[in-house]
Amino acid sequence: MAAMQRSEFRPDDLDTNGSYHLMTATIIPRPIAWVSSRSADGVDNLAPHSFFTVASADPPIVQFTSVGRKDTLNNVEATGEFVVNLAPEDMFHAINDSATNYPPGMSEFDELGIEREASRYVGPPRVAGSPVSMECRLVRTVPVGNCTVVWGEVLCFALDVSKVDLSRERRPHPRALDLAPLARLGKNEWSTLGRILDEPRKKYEG
Amino acid sequence: MAAMQRSEFRPDDLDTNGSYHLMTATIIPRPIAWVSSRSADGVDNLAPHSFFTVASADPPIVQFTSVGRKDTLNNVEATGEFVVNLAPEDMFHAINDSATNYPPGMSEFDELGIEREASRYVGPPRVAGSPVSMECRLVRTVPVGNCTVVWGEVLCFALDVSKVDLSRERRPHPRALDLAPLARLGKNEWSTLGRILDEPRKKYEG
Repeated sequence: MAAMQRSEFRPDDLDTNGSYHLMTATIIPRPIAWVSSRSADGVDNLAPHSFFTVASADPPIVQFTSVGRKDTLNNVEATGEFVVNLAPEDMFHAINDSATNYPPGMSEFDELGIEREASRYVGPPRVAGSPVSMECRLVRTVPVGNCTVVWGEVLCFALDVSKVDLSRERRPHPRALDLAPLARLGKNEWSTLGRILDEPRKKYEG
Repeated sequence: MAAMQRSEFRPDDLDTNGSYHLMTATIIPRPIAWVSSRSADGVDNLAPHSFFTVASADPPIVQFTSVGRKDTLNNVEATGEFVVNLAPEDMFHAINDSATNYPPGMSEFDELGIEREASRYVGPPRVAGSPVSMECRLVRTVPVGNCTVVWGEVLCFALDVSKVDLSRERRPHPRALDLAPLARLGKNEWSTLGRILDEPRKKYEG
């Protein structure tokens, strides 16, 4: 293969927020944690976080990164609870609009008319229209650079039965195409799920 | 909207590895850190990690989660260096095959015929065919449950100039469709990028 032409950048070669922009345009597609939280005053917040992954398989601990300090982080530290809702494609506009910088006293649920559903184990509500919600108890927050990493242990998975294969007992399996997850790219770009490829992992035979 | 029917599962309601399977089928699509590392003995390792995100914007710190202890984690802790390569769709089979459980003394680069490219600031090589590589220096590893979170500061972004908009000085922007990133779903499923949606974030006007 002919060598491609490379351009190299150190972080100092980039302009303000340049590393952030470059990482968000490179580390794609990113799944979205649509996080509901409740303030100490009882205001329900909802915001999309795309720096989101799994921090531990057992116990199940999910993680999102708060860039700077916003309502979600304040609420989670105040109450120790949050809910991660999967962000489905058919709620795209509500998801994008929930990133609006409303003041802390205003609830995205109310401002945007997003229906709540009561959680089972935590105070903050689930998003009624989300196919999977994970109710979480805060494990800890960790400052990293100009961000804060938030770890939450999943207490309960709430699944839309119409989008999950429940044929195996104790092993529910959400169907990817039915979840229709939205993902985040760089700038103002989002994406839908593309083609699905299926290939088993190979085992080393020696 | 009519309420959907929910099924709720606590982690204890699931079978062995059930939470892992449920999270991997729900937190989708996941971007892939195709991580190259070098052992203390000089063997170049390459493995895909899909629990991957940004931990800090400034300084730029990326993160992947090692499920259990594997070669990548051992190498990163031994040398303090690794490279995160974006996993492009046209290298799908090499990416999947690099998840094979080769013994530590065997290099995925050699076994699978994946071309190396020398890194600028670290020992482990880049993947020559990857459109973006991020050379990283280990910040720290943190045990979380049965996993280990690995934070690495990006020292250098190496970009394929044919896939990046370089028209703005100090602000390179990779084009999502040209990167053609592969993503990970649950079970043995992977996905390509779907439709791209573009919508600006709204500002609160008071």
